[in-house]
Amino acid sequence: MPPLSFDPDAAARGGALRAQIRASNFNGNTSGAAADLVQANLVILPQADAADFLLYCQRNPRPCPLLAVGSVGDPALPTLGHDIDLRSDLPRYRVWRHGELVAEPTDVRELWRDDLVAFAIGCSFSFEWALGEAGIRLRHQQRGCNVAMYRSNIATAAAGRFAGPLVVSMRPMKAADAIRAVQITSRFPAVHGAPVHLGDPGLIGIANLAAPDYGDAVELMADELPVFWACGVTPQAALAQARPDFCITHAPGSMLVTDLRNPQLAAF
Amino acid sequence: MPPLSFDPDAAARGGALRAQIRASNFNGNTSGAAADLVQANLVILPQADAADFLLYCQRNPRPCPLLAVGSVGDPALPTLGHDIDLRSDLPRYRVWRHGELVAEPTDVRELWRDDLVAFAIGCSFSFEWALGEAGIRLRHQQRGCNVAMYRSNIATAAAGRFAGPLVVSMRPMKAADAIRAVQITSRFPAVHGAPVHLGDPGLIGIANLAAPDYGDAVELMADELPVFWACGVTPQAALAQARPDFCITHAPGSMLVTDLRNPQLAAF
Repeated sequence: MPPLSFDPDAAARGGALRAQIRASNFNGNTSGAAADLVQANLVILPQADAADFLLYCQRNPRPCPLLAVGSVGDPALPTLGHDIDLRSDLPRYRVWRHGELVAEPTDVRELWRDDLVAFAIGCSFSFEWALGEAGIRLRHQQRGCNVAMYRSNIATAAAGRFAGPLVVSMRPMKAADAIRAVQITSRFPAVHGAPVHLGDPGLIGIANLAAPDYGDAVELMADELPVFWACGVTPQAALAQARPDFCITHAPGSMLVTDLRNPQLAAF
Repeated sequence: MPPLSFDPDAAARGGALRAQIRASNFNGNTSGAAADLVQANLVILPQADAADFLLYCQRNPRPCPLLAVGSVGDPALPTLGHDIDLRSDLPRYRVWRHGELVAEPTDVRELWRDDLVAFAIGCSFSFEWALGEAGIRLRHQQRGCNVAMYRSNIATAAAGRFAGPLVVSMRPMKAADAIRAVQITSRFPAVHGAPVHLGDPGLIGIANLAAPDYGDAVELMADELPVFWACGVTPQAALAQARPDFCITHAPGSMLVTDLRNPQLAAF
């Protein structure tokens, strides 16, 4: 796919928000802060691990849809924004050594290395934006909490050291909204695409919806189905299992804001 | 929409099958007899009722997707096939007077009138063909029986005397196939489109899946959801309720075979 062109207004908004973040004038959650702009999960790995991780993403496009991969040592992602500096443009990072969380800094300038490779992975905020545009209300947004996420019994396709379960996010919906949500999210393969499951959670190894492995539980009404999407936490679970010597990720809810608009990702 | 052009091979096959039917050399069910060719439900009404029925179809496009409406008194449907004669080109018809079934002839030449208007309504065979192409097996086809159909508690939008419940067809599927089926059938709005419901039948007023109102029951496995589509039997239920003085329809499973190929109906 050729690079998408930037809408000038969107690029101005994305650039302004990143400038605020870079200047440490914005420390909040990027959810809701960027309206229709595409946000991305970030994974930064040494070149020694990058080839396997790239293959892992290629083999698992539903949980790990790659929006961009940086050049070795380069903290820019020019296809996602005109002046992105990944060392400073996220509100908060997580730094991992041998699989252990060692720091949560607001920039990683001091940690940057010439052998680092950045991966920007599509985020559910994009399809949630599309669902909202279509008038579908999401309970976790109404409750002001995080989406509920679960480790399923579906294995991802391994690549080198990277392996692990498919992590899924769950949104309760009435059947008509679930059908509409399949239609809407199918248009967005770059941000997880269609659901991977709906209905009985036990069929994908989830014993108790009230006890999510990540995020917050929300109630399921009698006239609703749980609808499950492949989740961007999947690569984090694979990283936790692979325990690379060094890794930087975004902190939860603290995403890379790009200059692309969500509608630009629609497949049809 | 401008008329679709006919593929020469498809037109030859459609024409040959209709010629066989016209010559009474084919008395069977058209299901499976026409491969990838679009088949249609047929409703023929006097002009006095036709305007209301047209409005009924317009107001209820999911159960009553119009593929073509004939000119008054004309038994041809030139946008659906090059030599269609609706008086003889279906294997079997049903003739209704004041809502009562009075005959099931193999042609209606003697009954044709200058004030009759023909309606060709999209048929589930088209989306079932698309599901089959995608590798989704349908239980009623495996069992060699009719699809199970139910009168739901969803009311159609009335037009004049035409009104009644939405009739739905049900196909049991595993969740992954149900999601795929939403994607596939969404591409075919001219033949009922996406499901209208999935999961709990009680939510649309169906008390017992084992007791369909039309067609045959099939079992629902523990790892399956019932998936419900708007059904072309809906207009027949509205006709039974409206009781027009005179009406001709296709007999069940005895459809109009056209010269169009199902892929030509795909919206994207």
